[in-house]
Amino acid sequence: MELSRDYLDEIYAFAVELGKQAGKMLLDGAKLRMGGGGPEEKGHVQKENAVDLVTQTDEDVEAFIKGEVMKKYPSHKFVGEESYSKGSSRDYLIDDSPTWCIDPLDGTVNYIHLFPMFCVSIAFIHNSKPLIGVIHAPFLNQLFSSCYGRGAWLNEHQPLPLVQNPVPPLPVNAPSGCVFSCEWGKDRRDQPDGNLHRKVESFVNMAAEIGGRQGRGGMVHGVRSLGSATLDLAYVAMGAFDIWWEGGCWEWDVAAGIAILQEAGGLITNANPPEDHVTAPIEEVRLGSRLYLAIRPAGPSSTETGRESQERTVREVWRRVRKLDYSRPGA
Amino acid sequence: MELSRDYLDEIYAFAVELGKQAGKMLLDGAKLRMGGGGPEEKGHVQKENAVDLVTQTDEDVEAFIKGEVMKKYPSHKFVGEESYSKGSSRDYLIDDSPTWCIDPLDGTVNYIHLFPMFCVSIAFIHNSKPLIGVIHAPFLNQLFSSCYGRGAWLNEHQPLPLVQNPVPPLPVNAPSGCVFSCEWGKDRRDQPDGNLHRKVESFVNMAAEIGGRQGRGGMVHGVRSLGSATLDLAYVAMGAFDIWWEGGCWEWDVAAGIAILQEAGGLITNANPPEDHVTAPIEEVRLGSRLYLAIRPAGPSSTETGRESQERTVREVWRRVRKLDYSRPGA
Repeated sequence: MELSRDYLDEIYAFAVELGKQAGKMLLDGAKLRMGGGGPEEKGHVQKENAVDLVTQTDEDVEAFIKGEVMKKYPSHKFVGEESYSKGSSRDYLIDDSPTWCIDPLDGTVNYIHLFPMFCVSIAFIHNSKPLIGVIHAPFLNQLFSSCYGRGAWLNEHQPLPLVQNPVPPLPVNAPSGCVFSCEWGKDRRDQPDGNLHRKVESFVNMAAEIGGRQGRGGMVHGVRSLGSATLDLAYVAMGAFDIWWEGGCWEWDVAAGIAILQEAGGLITNANPPEDHVTAPIEEVRLGSRLYLAIRPAGPSSTETGRESQERTVREVWRRVRKLDYSRPGA
Repeated sequence: MELSRDYLDEIYAFAVELGKQAGKMLLDGAKLRMGGGGPEEKGHVQKENAVDLVTQTDEDVEAFIKGEVMKKYPSHKFVGEESYSKGSSRDYLIDDSPTWCIDPLDGTVNYIHLFPMFCVSIAFIHNSKPLIGVIHAPFLNQLFSSCYGRGAWLNEHQPLPLVQNPVPPLPVNAPSGCVFSCEWGKDRRDQPDGNLHRKVESFVNMAAEIGGRQGRGGMVHGVRSLGSATLDLAYVAMGAFDIWWEGGCWEWDVAAGIAILQEAGGLITNANPPEDHVTAPIEEVRLGSRLYLAIRPAGPSSTETGRESQERTVREVWRRVRKLDYSRPGA
């Protein structure tokens, strides 16, 4: 089944509207916990109840989005983080059907602590490819959106990446000069060769001076950790982060971000380095792989195409990172 | 010399206005590099010129603030990051005089890459104590401000910390349950016991599971790195981060943030653990120490005062971190 241009545009407009409303629900939920109004109006939710309130908001936002989608597009499939977590199956649920894949609240820890890096994430997928992405971070007043063939946007008017005419290539000595985005994640087991230690070893390789770490030092320009995979991807699409490397994500964490990144001209591939990182083909990542490496949109230089500078950067990252151990049933 | 309430309030209003205008200058400078307008209007600055443009904006903003301050308060001292960096003296410049201490652009790497976590930072100091702080992150639409005795505010109307009535205590098992903010910094030398490795060892102790790391595992709720010491402090004042631990900052990186944090009820002390971290007194940090540990505002529980829960958290951090090697001539 092919989707017409008009049909896709209609879905896009609908998804953006959903994202705006869902983001407002998140912000309203956050304001319930803030002081400043009368004690009856705001700030009356005690800290011990904050986690319950967050769970409730999370569920309410997913129910709202699911209800609206099912009403407007009853034939589409719906995969939501909350419904999935409560279900008994851990199977991979994305197939070739028109599918909505949403995370009502990404950056849950941030939301609990009222750190502004939280968002709602809405993706529309067809033939297993994310075609539309909407990411709304309401506390930051940032709405990222994209539709296949229509470009990627910040707040509906600013094209992504932010730097255009031309889009700059990756630095010639990347990862040096790059902002590197990574997350510590939830797997904190102190096992000698566990994911925590593999991640940290990789981070240190990327950060250390050139010549350090037995030649693996990448001397990146900066290391950033925001606590939201979705916003990490949005900032790579923006060009603010050059490289994002992460393991352990689920489809709803990344589907909208991948749509936006790809429409902006970014590259997304596998986080785990192949046996031969120098010559292995650089393939588009399969949604569901749980292991992601994203490179920002890049334009040509006098010696390389943008894609060539992205692929060069991928290989330089692969040379410095360890394989992570995450799997996905059924993907 | 004592400053009257009216005089301080007048300085505060002036500093907020300066922060708004300086933030707008930063945003205008960023927009020069963004696409979206006509090629003559916007986005015409090539990537290779971006660093020059950033340096120019940095200097322009400092010159603007210095000019306005010297016009309005010619008797006050002025310490700015840009003028200091260009000067020959590395002496510590804060004394008991009424002094403005400003960083025209904190988060320079973020600004170069157009990642929104950048800001202008303006502090007014008297008797070596930061009394007024203004931090404006214009891409985030966030203006943090405080004046001694007048409270701390987000965007002039939302009191800090965000959660009030009551302000929650620190978790009973802190640092578990806490959001931990830290930075990788610029010292990336791969020396076995250098700052990079001491920092990473400390980060891993804070992050690892309880019981891990020979009992040092802190299992924090999340690890965040934004690339701006100033905004790290603002988010601790907000209550979004529970703990910030960092070495290597200069006075202008932290003066405004310390003013806002303290006015919000937060604690700031030394990053380096004392010999006896269990019983050593927890002293207010000296501006100029370059080593900072900040704890968010905290209210009482049924068993502790807010200050007691903050001090307990300081000792738990000290138990897990290494001493960092940064010094400050003359401080």
